[in-house]
Amino acid sequence: MSTQAQVRTRVRTSVATVSLSGSLEEKLTAIADAGFDGFEVFEPDFVSSPLSPGELATRAGDLGLRIDLYQPFRDLDSTDDEQFARNLIRAERKFDIMAQLGCDTILVCSSPLPTAVRDDDRLAAQLHELSVRADRRGIRIAYEALAWGAHVNTYRHAWDIVARADHPALGTCLDSFHILSRGDDPSGIRDIPGDKIFFLQLADAPRLSMDVLSWSRHHRNFPGQGNFDLATFGAHVQASGYTGPWSLEVFNDVFRHSATGRTAADAHRSLLHLQEEVARVQESECDTRGLSLFAPPAPAPIDGVVSLRLAAGPRKDGELREMLRHIGFHLVGRHRQHDLQLWRHGSLTIAVDATAGTVWTAPGIPADLPALTQIGVRCADPDAWGRRAAALEMPVSEVDLPGADPAQSDVVRLRVTDATSLDLRSPSSGAGWLSAFEMYPIPVAQWRRQRALFTGVDHIALALPADSWDGVMLALRSVLGMQPHEGLDVTDAVGLMHTQALTLGDGDARLRILLNMVDGNAFGMENIPVARRGGVSHVAFSCEDIFTTATHMVAGGYEPLPISPNYYADLEARFGLHPELLDRMRTLGILYDANADGEFFHLFTRTVGADLFFEVVQRVGGYKGYGEPNAAVRLSAQLR
Amino acid sequence: MSTQAQVRTRVRTSVATVSLSGSLEEKLTAIADAGFDGFEVFEPDFVSSPLSPGELATRAGDLGLRIDLYQPFRDLDSTDDEQFARNLIRAERKFDIMAQLGCDTILVCSSPLPTAVRDDDRLAAQLHELSVRADRRGIRIAYEALAWGAHVNTYRHAWDIVARADHPALGTCLDSFHILSRGDDPSGIRDIPGDKIFFLQLADAPRLSMDVLSWSRHHRNFPGQGNFDLATFGAHVQASGYTGPWSLEVFNDVFRHSATGRTAADAHRSLLHLQEEVARVQESECDTRGLSLFAPPAPAPIDGVVSLRLAAGPRKDGELREMLRHIGFHLVGRHRQHDLQLWRHGSLTIAVDATAGTVWTAPGIPADLPALTQIGVRCADPDAWGRRAAALEMPVSEVDLPGADPAQSDVVRLRVTDATSLDLRSPSSGAGWLSAFEMYPIPVAQWRRQRALFTGVDHIALALPADSWDGVMLALRSVLGMQPHEGLDVTDAVGLMHTQALTLGDGDARLRILLNMVDGNAFGMENIPVARRGGVSHVAFSCEDIFTTATHMVAGGYEPLPISPNYYADLEARFGLHPELLDRMRTLGILYDANADGEFFHLFTRTVGADLFFEVVQRVGGYKGYGEPNAAVRLSAQLR
Repeated sequence: MSTQAQVRTRVRTSVATVSLSGSLEEKLTAIADAGFDGFEVFEPDFVSSPLSPGELATRAGDLGLRIDLYQPFRDLDSTDDEQFARNLIRAERKFDIMAQLGCDTILVCSSPLPTAVRDDDRLAAQLHELSVRADRRGIRIAYEALAWGAHVNTYRHAWDIVARADHPALGTCLDSFHILSRGDDPSGIRDIPGDKIFFLQLADAPRLSMDVLSWSRHHRNFPGQGNFDLATFGAHVQASGYTGPWSLEVFNDVFRHSATGRTAADAHRSLLHLQEEVARVQESECDTRGLSLFAPPAPAPIDGVVSLRLAAGPRKDGELREMLRHIGFHLVGRHRQHDLQLWRHGSLTIAVDATAGTVWTAPGIPADLPALTQIGVRCADPDAWGRRAAALEMPVSEVDLPGADPAQSDVVRLRVTDATSLDLRSPSSGAGWLSAFEMYPIPVAQWRRQRALFTGVDHIALALPADSWDGVMLALRSVLGMQPHEGLDVTDAVGLMHTQALTLGDGDARLRILLNMVDGNAFGMENIPVARRGGVSHVAFSCEDIFTTATHMVAGGYEPLPISPNYYADLEARFGLHPELLDRMRTLGILYDANADGEFFHLFTRTVGADLFFEVVQRVGGYKGYGEPNAAVRLSAQLR
Repeated sequence: MSTQAQVRTRVRTSVATVSLSGSLEEKLTAIADAGFDGFEVFEPDFVSSPLSPGELATRAGDLGLRIDLYQPFRDLDSTDDEQFARNLIRAERKFDIMAQLGCDTILVCSSPLPTAVRDDDRLAAQLHELSVRADRRGIRIAYEALAWGAHVNTYRHAWDIVARADHPALGTCLDSFHILSRGDDPSGIRDIPGDKIFFLQLADAPRLSMDVLSWSRHHRNFPGQGNFDLATFGAHVQASGYTGPWSLEVFNDVFRHSATGRTAADAHRSLLHLQEEVARVQESECDTRGLSLFAPPAPAPIDGVVSLRLAAGPRKDGELREMLRHIGFHLVGRHRQHDLQLWRHGSLTIAVDATAGTVWTAPGIPADLPALTQIGVRCADPDAWGRRAAALEMPVSEVDLPGADPAQSDVVRLRVTDATSLDLRSPSSGAGWLSAFEMYPIPVAQWRRQRALFTGVDHIALALPADSWDGVMLALRSVLGMQPHEGLDVTDAVGLMHTQALTLGDGDARLRILLNMVDGNAFGMENIPVARRGGVSHVAFSCEDIFTTATHMVAGGYEPLPISPNYYADLEARFGLHPELLDRMRTLGILYDANADGEFFHLFTRTVGADLFFEVVQRVGGYKGYGEPNAAVRLSAQLR
């Protein structure tokens, strides 16, 4: 038996009911369905529920769920002795409920009130008194520092008070948000005896500049959805010897109204993802104490995007075909049974689906057609990806490309968003389903012309409603191992859009995805262009010389976007570009950006339908951006 | 001629193009239509516009608009002399454009960069050099301190640099956001010579805890929509002798996608409102320098809410009538031509409209029926209200109550939200239109029973989509002179709702309105109860003894909401209420809140249709709230 196997333990998973939407009954069902071992009762959920404590305990038992924590108990300590006495009575009433619930741990958080006790000995004495009463009832007190506590607001201080109070029924509760939001160094967690950590609450959060209280109450999310280094945090906790549940406590405005089951599934996936990340940190530290049992197959190498599928429907089919022809794609085949065409450009394939059918960007929100429904990626080992996705509880869809034999196809399909899936194919796959197509011979002249144009797919932008954002982010980061870069707000004539790039590894060009979130208020608003309501989706092709490429495209029928002359005057003022270069750019509708890393030239097509367009980009030097400052200029030209 | 008349001046109004959504052409049309005298060209709007500078100048001239300012010119000063030389060339390119625009003032803002000049003399010298160049072109430099400037970030410092640079083409620009967001004392504005203030930018903002840059770029709004004391600020500016335009520069995520014309109208109204507020401050200071010419009729006294109109449509009519009967209203008449019933309870009248027709909560968003479409308020002088509303450019609607003669009706109707209007009626009005109704005799027993119940309308809650929020807030504050109280986020099982109370004067009970904003993302989401998608609207009746009232209601058929027993256990733990009182409350579905001001008892009906319900409240002592902590408990019971 290896040393590693000896110490590996199964992590018990838990989640606070406040993290999900719905009634308490709905939450419990979703928590059990998602595979959690237990949950925290968030008191306001219990207070408004018709379930009595006994009924709740029975329901939890029937679902195989432990009630891990009752929370929060606020404002225990007080400089006013009478108030403290009343608080002890209030606590006894909660112990009554916990006895009926069969829950043995209550969260007591540090007080943010002006009456908070600021004398550590007196505070420890008050906590000791509460612990004596709790102990009589068989209940444990988990004392937590709120980041905005009046006196106690760091985990070190909370642990110091617990040590000072010195009662077996008293321990501390660690909450990653309260610790990391303050920028505290979490390494001191290693110094706390694991058996005195009575509970562990985990939350991630995006980097935001706002007061910690608002940040905490509205913008927490699950591990792998935000910007905290939870992997290192988790490694510290494992090193302490803590063996209790890993529990999610997330206050998030979007989750509060999102589909309960979907959020619960994301929550559980986030804990699996975190375990893998923690194990990675532990391995890098050669620390094998408490290594998690969870070890999915590692991500296999990906070569890059080789194919796309676009749903055009019968109404947008003509417009899309014209656009594809103009930018240099050629119709090479047609399905024998279905209204499905194959277009090629060099080694890139686009399948255009002209059959009728609705594509959904989210439950209840139909996408505007044409919509990008599949991204085909070539990789060495699709099967390993399939096993990895399954381990991370990500549904692997059936392959429904007409003509394909699912058992033989060697294609793994991951649903990345409601509208778009990612197909992972081995280099050998694809030959089988081609037989379902009638293929056309291609004139040599066309092959020649193509050589000058696109070298691949630079990036793909996907439109996302706010409700889907965190779930998609987690899927891309956990299953595919993609890395998020700095998010950005882009403004234009019709609103503000948050955009976020993800790449394989640090800027790896083989797969770059931009997520575009539109303000949910735009849905149903009359004066918003349809493109903005449904978000903005596009495919950007890379090329080696954008001027040559654009000239060829114009020869093929592409009409450059009418970019404002004011834009080129501003480029001249800002970058001092040569007037002759600016003239060529203006003629071909080419936009420009530059920074310390390099330069970026790009052009856009008009939109096809309301929502889809194509981009062509040329990167010079190490430019890593996406020309975001040009978004308003691009949209203004597309709207004309 | 009085002294006051001698110094009153007409304020010139202006607005930055960034404050509105749409293309630059659409913005200009909306700005002219709203009655502005001029506008600021926000450079990114110009850069993405197809209009050449000459075409823009012509368009502005045709619309009767002055181009008051070109902005912003960023990062002029630099510790790197070569960079500063390049910045001067960049400025010259902008002067070229301004010459074609016919615009003579450019905004230069303090630098937030690490290369910002931190030596005041050197900074003044660089600004002097720019001013010499500008002067040659007939252009003026308005230098502004950004709140997040690296070295210059207060208006006093910016003015000091301007004084030090000492050039006739150089003055300062004041921006209320940059000054008030930092908590700076604006009274020093009085010490700046008015002719050295080259420009005035105004923005209000809600009180938010976030970094000033994000607050500024996303959450500014128009005067009368936020929490800044702009009246005092404006009085300081008037006292300085400034005679230039009062211009709005607002960066607001919601306005960026809202209807352009509506936002522009709100913008202009906000400047009229501000002038009235400034004049009020000046009068209180006996300061008659520069008093504005704008003086609408003052708000006339309001007695209170006396009637409501509810649109039920043919489908919700029966359900609503049953509810009205259960809570103690009686059918007293029916319209002779239309399907319109009159219901009475004491002196309160409710008209129920069962005719078919859609009520819109916002353009494109149909309200769920039944919906509250009119609030009837009794006041001494409706005509004065009508003239006041007209002066503040608030549309006064036609009165369409069947049977009413608009010329005679003595009713002024203000559209408060898209769904709901406020009817201001004199005590004598109403007799005319009653003749169109067939009235029923009422049994004496009914009259008796009614005496014990409602004493009036305590408050009315209106559901608002985020897009309408600021406009409605401004209308209530400007025309009706209502005062906003602290806003509050309320969470429950289906999401988070921002709620905001407004009252006449400070807590005046004669008219209390709660605005409820729902997260726009909820629209179109499948798993959100309809009630939450369309917002939450209700009418709260006041009473003197809620236990007697509720007992009478139960006798009339009202079924108390099934409030969770856990709620009463929690009330006992929190407030130590007597078990017998808790028992009576539980039986009647009565909820409770208390604070230092007093106590609050209230009960709710189930919802009628998806969105409307009634509340009964009893206030004890000086309790000023609305029982907000009980929202989740109420909704949980209504959903069952």
